[in-house]
Amino acid sequence: MPESGAEKMAEQVAQTMMAGDRFSALLGSELIKAGPDYCELQLSVGDNHINNHDICHGGVFFTLADTAFAVACNSANQIAVAQFCQISFLAPGRKGDRLSAKARRVGGTSRSGLYDIEVTRLSDGALLAAFRGHSRQLNGQVVSSGDSQAG
Amino acid sequence: MPESGAEKMAEQVAQTMMAGDRFSALLGSELIKAGPDYCELQLSVGDNHINNHDICHGGVFFTLADTAFAVACNSANQIAVAQFCQISFLAPGRKGDRLSAKARRVGGTSRSGLYDIEVTRLSDGALLAAFRGHSRQLNGQVVSSGDSQAG
Amino acid sequence: MPESGAEKMAEQVAQTMMAGDRFSALLGSELIKAGPDYCELQLSVGDNHINNHDICHGGVFFTLADTAFAVACNSANQIAVAQFCQISFLAPGRKGDRLSAKARRVGGTSRSGLYDIEVTRLSDGALLAAFRGHSRQLNGQVVSSGDSQAG
Amino acid sequence: MPESGAEKMAEQVAQTMMAGDRFSALLGSELIKAGPDYCELQLSVGDNHINNHDICHGGVFFTLADTAFAVACNSANQIAVAQFCQISFLAPGRKGDRLSAKARRVGGTSRSGLYDIEVTRLSDGALLAAFRGHSRQLNGQVVSSGDSQAG
Repeated sequence: MPESGAEKMAEQVAQTMMAGDRFSALLGSELIKAGPDYCELQLSVGDNHINNHDICHGGVFFTLADTAFAVACNSANQIAVAQFCQISFLAPGRKGDRLSAKARRVGGTSRSGLYDIEVTRLSDGALLAAFRGHSRQLNGQVVSSGDSQAG
Repeated sequence: MPESGAEKMAEQVAQTMMAGDRFSALLGSELIKAGPDYCELQLSVGDNHINNHDICHGGVFFTLADTAFAVACNSANQIAVAQFCQISFLAPGRKGDRLSAKARRVGGTSRSGLYDIEVTRLSDGALLAAFRGHSRQLNGQVVSSGDSQAG
Repeated sequence: MPESGAEKMAEQVAQTMMAGDRFSALLGSELIKAGPDYCELQLSVGDNHINNHDICHGGVFFTLADTAFAVACNSANQIAVAQFCQISFLAPGRKGDRLSAKARRVGGTSRSGLYDIEVTRLSDGALLAAFRGHSRQLNGQVVSSGDSQAG
Repeated sequence: MPESGAEKMAEQVAQTMMAGDRFSALLGSELIKAGPDYCELQLSVGDNHINNHDICHGGVFFTLADTAFAVACNSANQIAVAQFCQISFLAPGRKGDRLSAKARRVGGTSRSGLYDIEVTRLSDGALLAAFRGHSRQLNGQVVSSGDSQAG
């Protein structure tokens, strides 16, 4: 089945956003899949992600989930920002764990969206953290139309 | 006024936690002040903290606030972990901003605590993000009694 | 397929909880279905549920969802209470709407649970509000063993 | 000190909102004080507010706090609605308790506001629940200018 225009746009937006996201690069977050209102990222928990309790820092979970959320809620190439997010920590992450964050839209209006992001451990699918984010669209586009035609 | 035992313990816990927190070190978070149920951290927004919209990544705000929260809720040397956190993004951070996160206890029970953390821009005191966190005490101590006697 | 013991217990707990819940009776909440870690309630929006903007009061959505959550997280006959809840209002309810709240467990540990509750409009299935609740088990049972044998 | 125009408007908005709020009337919520970005309501926990655990239903806490929030965020006579709310339950309410909910603005932008609402027990000031709400302004006014001139 060929990709739709919305799917191509979502991929282009995701690649653009990840390429310009310096903090996600610092963490080692990797883009796995993007589509309309959807994104999956992955990250391997390493030495730099650990806190003093010797478990993965909550900020790593949050950042991975928040970035998947951002990519998903910008996927139509309309700039949107996070207004409010919450995260529930259900089980700790350990060094060596491969984490997956999958973002999907739950509901909302044209300009305001609610997204759920689940952070799981890839080895066994255990749900380690559940994130819920609220986005608000602003004026402006992620990929300019010149870039888009070239894409 | 001489420091109380609780104040000395809170400082020792804070220094121990920050020394072992690899992810906060990666971000450049600095301990400013710690006390019973209280902590202030600061961080300067640099090149590595920026996302594709050219503003400070939400994960940087969250991590700074979450770490101040962790230090505050462990300040009595009883290990506690975050169960649930929420963050409201009120205004963006820019490269060069100096951010301050101040955590304080709002209420709760002996084992379960509610903390508010405000992230402000040091230059003008503007409130950039408001964070609320729920902690739960576990068994175990941050600083072992041997360390404590030596401290 | 005959009901399991867990299903029977969940139904008995649900009936006991709803029978003793004076506030839910005042609102007109009705038990539709209960099972292990699951509950559905319904309510018809009437004159008494309206606020000054002439739409259903947010407290009605919250109460309906919170009660479905309470029934679901007590379903194993172990008393649990809400620690922390959040609700996102996605679209207004109107007088005459029939609301459905469905609660299900998302994750957690043996003593601490995370539940999602969706409040929809029955006529078209539109998602009007999304609720997320965190429960904590206490000592004690909803249905005493004497009652249970008699049930 | 004479009241400012903003204070008079806030009082008029509060009285109008409470007069039209059928659900708050059903609960017995009473307006104590209103001002710009501020509101205090009170309620006495009675037979109808109790759940099956024989404590005040979480929906009563939420509704009281949510209504104080609504009055505070509409106080400039510009209609605003709740987008997202969270509540932390810190200690139970009992029959006979007099509850107070005080709402105040924490931050935000011109159209989007963050409010904190504390629900306390009047007899001893104990913090029973902490509520945080996010509002969004819509077009329209609570009190029409004809009403306002008459007020």
